[in-house]
Amino acid sequence: MNSVVIVAGGSGTRMGSLTAKQYLKIGDMPILMHTMAAFFNFDVSIDIVLVLPSGDRDFWQTLCNDYGFKVPHRTTVGGSSRFLSVKNGLAACDPASKLVAIHDAVRPFVAESVIRQGFEVAAQHGSAIPVVPLKDSLRRVEADGRSTFQDRQAFRLVQTPQIFQKPRILQAFRVEDNPAFTDDATVYEHQGWEVTLYPGNPENIKITSPEDMAYAEFLLNGLST
Amino acid sequence: MNSVVIVAGGSGTRMGSLTAKQYLKIGDMPILMHTMAAFFNFDVSIDIVLVLPSGDRDFWQTLCNDYGFKVPHRTTVGGSSRFLSVKNGLAACDPASKLVAIHDAVRPFVAESVIRQGFEVAAQHGSAIPVVPLKDSLRRVEADGRSTFQDRQAFRLVQTPQIFQKPRILQAFRVEDNPAFTDDATVYEHQGWEVTLYPGNPENIKITSPEDMAYAEFLLNGLST
Repeated sequence: MNSVVIVAGGSGTRMGSLTAKQYLKIGDMPILMHTMAAFFNFDVSIDIVLVLPSGDRDFWQTLCNDYGFKVPHRTTVGGSSRFLSVKNGLAACDPASKLVAIHDAVRPFVAESVIRQGFEVAAQHGSAIPVVPLKDSLRRVEADGRSTFQDRQAFRLVQTPQIFQKPRILQAFRVEDNPAFTDDATVYEHQGWEVTLYPGNPENIKITSPEDMAYAEFLLNGLST
Repeated sequence: MNSVVIVAGGSGTRMGSLTAKQYLKIGDMPILMHTMAAFFNFDVSIDIVLVLPSGDRDFWQTLCNDYGFKVPHRTTVGGSSRFLSVKNGLAACDPASKLVAIHDAVRPFVAESVIRQGFEVAAQHGSAIPVVPLKDSLRRVEADGRSTFQDRQAFRLVQTPQIFQKPRILQAFRVEDNPAFTDDATVYEHQGWEVTLYPGNPENIKITSPEDMAYAEFLLNGLST
């Protein structure tokens, strides 16, 4: 059995829906439901743990009722940082699961093939981090404002789901929170372990701006036709 | 007076339209015409120099006739590299122009405000390179396959138009071609000059894949409503 921890960052009740993109509707339901459905469609028996801001559980339950959302899942409460939220999510996973995916709530367009390959790579190598190449040139900006050209072919953009062997990622999260932990791969690496990269799907965008919402509607229409 | 050199890379006649995205139609006309119209709409007196693959001039003339395309421009012939194509374009600019923008033919969605600010910044600082922040995490991949986390806030994605004071960019292009010249900013920097970055518009994408074409149609519909 595999688990997936879906991390919903922004709060819908405290900060207003404009800052909590996961509750905004694209197509026929909120982004978060599309995201959860992607994992359910990959494997109807997957163990889904949804990490919600502490004030949002009733709001989420109401949304599930309103939309008749039937994807089986458990919810747990997020912490004051992404690290603490993921840690809570990991603790709530089914004890029987061997692998766990950690995924952003606002990435509904992860391909089923990317989820599948991620579990396979993580089973073999310990971790699986989906990445895509850059299409534009890249520059590095220094503190003094100067910038230098970078070879974009040496860089990759990092997505989720980041998938790990569960004993390893549980051990990795037993440390104190650290500003250097920008994603789960960096927490894993903090143990001295290397992460394994594999190809993600470019349309697996993180929806964070109004332009992203429009693009998300576009992607959804393309996928459903 | 200002000039813009629009660089059309792929050839429509030699390699087939699938590799020459600039001739593909979005909305009511080819991408390249939208791109040229963006600069004409910004300034109807701008000096537009279009750099075309050597075999494409008749094809382009036919397209202009077919679509009744009236944006005033001159064409010149591209070279065997982007550097040589831009060099030809610069040589064909109106001698009276003080500033020159160099722009990808397949970026039709540059905002008028970005063109305007670019000319202002270049007039003051010598150059103006539009950049946008990264939304995803970034990793650097080493030759041995290992990868290391990068602070994405220290990086920017580079777009066009890259705008320069003309005497400077003409001087910069008087060197030999060099594999390190990945864009015009790097040619400029080769003189020991620093480039000035300014904010681009995120939807100013480079259309290079079928998915980009579909997104371009979507952006065009959004812009026209």
